[in-house]
Amino acid sequence: MHENFNLIIEILGTISFAMSGSFAAMQKRLDPFGVLIIAFITSVGGGTVRDLLLGIPVFWMRDLLTCGLILGTSIFAMIFKSMEKNFKVTLFIFDSFGLGLFTIIGVQKGLNAGIHPIICIGLGTITGCFGGIIRDILLNRIPLIFRKEIYASACIIGGTAFLLLTNFTMLSYTFIQIFTILLIVAIRTFAVKYHWQIPKFYGYENNSEM
Amino acid sequence: MHENFNLIIEILGTISFAMSGSFAAMQKRLDPFGVLIIAFITSVGGGTVRDLLLGIPVFWMRDLLTCGLILGTSIFAMIFKSMEKNFKVTLFIFDSFGLGLFTIIGVQKGLNAGIHPIICIGLGTITGCFGGIIRDILLNRIPLIFRKEIYASACIIGGTAFLLLTNFTMLSYTFIQIFTILLIVAIRTFAVKYHWQIPKFYGYENNSEM
Amino acid sequence: MHENFNLIIEILGTISFAMSGSFAAMQKRLDPFGVLIIAFITSVGGGTVRDLLLGIPVFWMRDLLTCGLILGTSIFAMIFKSMEKNFKVTLFIFDSFGLGLFTIIGVQKGLNAGIHPIICIGLGTITGCFGGIIRDILLNRIPLIFRKEIYASACIIGGTAFLLLTNFTMLSYTFIQIFTILLIVAIRTFAVKYHWQIPKFYGYENNSEM
Repeated sequence: MHENFNLIIEILGTISFAMSGSFAAMQKRLDPFGVLIIAFITSVGGGTVRDLLLGIPVFWMRDLLTCGLILGTSIFAMIFKSMEKNFKVTLFIFDSFGLGLFTIIGVQKGLNAGIHPIICIGLGTITGCFGGIIRDILLNRIPLIFRKEIYASACIIGGTAFLLLTNFTMLSYTFIQIFTILLIVAIRTFAVKYHWQIPKFYGYENNSEM
Repeated sequence: MHENFNLIIEILGTISFAMSGSFAAMQKRLDPFGVLIIAFITSVGGGTVRDLLLGIPVFWMRDLLTCGLILGTSIFAMIFKSMEKNFKVTLFIFDSFGLGLFTIIGVQKGLNAGIHPIICIGLGTITGCFGGIIRDILLNRIPLIFRKEIYASACIIGGTAFLLLTNFTMLSYTFIQIFTILLIVAIRTFAVKYHWQIPKFYGYENNSEM
Repeated sequence: MHENFNLIIEILGTISFAMSGSFAAMQKRLDPFGVLIIAFITSVGGGTVRDLLLGIPVFWMRDLLTCGLILGTSIFAMIFKSMEKNFKVTLFIFDSFGLGLFTIIGVQKGLNAGIHPIICIGLGTITGCFGGIIRDILLNRIPLIFRKEIYASACIIGGTAFLLLTNFTMLSYTFIQIFTILLIVAIRTFAVKYHWQIPKFYGYENNSEM
């Protein structure tokens, strides 16, 4: 049951990021193969870096399900696109859900490998953020991670909440997973909607290049 | 014999990408050490990512031949440059050959590691494309991979042809290697010469940043 | 004693690059979490790539000291910043020291893993440079490595000096470490101060994009 639920999270995360990658690539007018490649990199990027850091086999190398999901999602996105106009909202929704789902998977995989909880929050953040960072660098977009709105901070907060709730409450594991995933999505959504920013206590300065 | 031919492909691929990296770096007027570093990263980048994904030792870490070849090629390119004016064509030729040679090596290494053929096509594409992607990101050039002309698509087509021909024909292995490498080079060359593009069936839209 | 001195070098390198990452991120006006993430990536980036290439466990995955140091340095940098105006000089000093410290650590770790000395110079250069390269790419700055002044060349010279001195002189190991680290810092400092450049013997040309 618990294993099955983790599989569902991974599948949803894979689909979410494959969607977000496909839409970002179509927005840049890449050809269908290019869209597929960006969908793939966005979807597996974070988990690949996580597995390399943990020194465990890269999850998608012997797993046709992931590749099939990304291929299917990418084709669906391209067909669906001809009926749909709004890149921005679609991209945002799928990116936010991918962020939440993959962050929690990353924290869990770190804990399973016996890594210290504090470092697991970092691993979760990496799993959540890296696919999108690589996508944005490849597409020459300004990486979402360093725009003004809260992004990686949402992963850090969600990962911390996950650790606190699993260690200090009696809530069911599955409930905590769903709650913290939705927490990350909610933080990200409200941050963009209401232009939330983490206050900077250090002084402002001319932002010119060094 | 078969082993020897694979070694020849690797050597030619290493030289091709070291050339393409050197010329790209000289075009950006880097100093000789910078040229050497970009040549190195372009040449070993794709194979390094492939080996990390496969969880096998990184090929150039205990192999002075690769390092020597890159050093020699890079010095040759710098000397040769003073006699030669046309960066564009030289860079294009060597990049195309590197792409073809490394894609087929990548597919083979994946198959040898027991990876599913479909995923091996992805591995071949990564081996072929990643060195050039990292080169372009470091040099602040728009990565070739997402310009309009066919690029990664050539790797996917070449890798697929390689798998189909080795499995469903009686042609000699060496012939199939040479044929698919030249196929990738030919696709890439004709794509740039005649502005081939893969048709996009999804709707066009304003290409502005999100 | 010797082990202890290596630990001191690692700690100083971690702090230096965490400082340089924090200042670069504050210069781009990232929020505190963003500053922390960039500090982290700058600090562990080079060593992570080195460990992945060597196929050894990634150094910071089971090491709370590194994470604690980066967190502490990053918070200190943000507080200190409100009293301090000059990003450029601070960033430069810490980047140079990080470069020197991490290059020598990289060469040593390669030698310890039984890698050929020539390749170890490359490993040292990667350890020294990659954190800063990833930092600059993420922050959309032009990577220091391909600006006009000597950068990676300083690592190559320092790494070569380290190998020559340890093999062909009777000087104490610790002295050689300190000397070559300071050599890298000195080369970098003088290069920027006096606009040193490695001469390019290949012809100049129009620097336009391909």
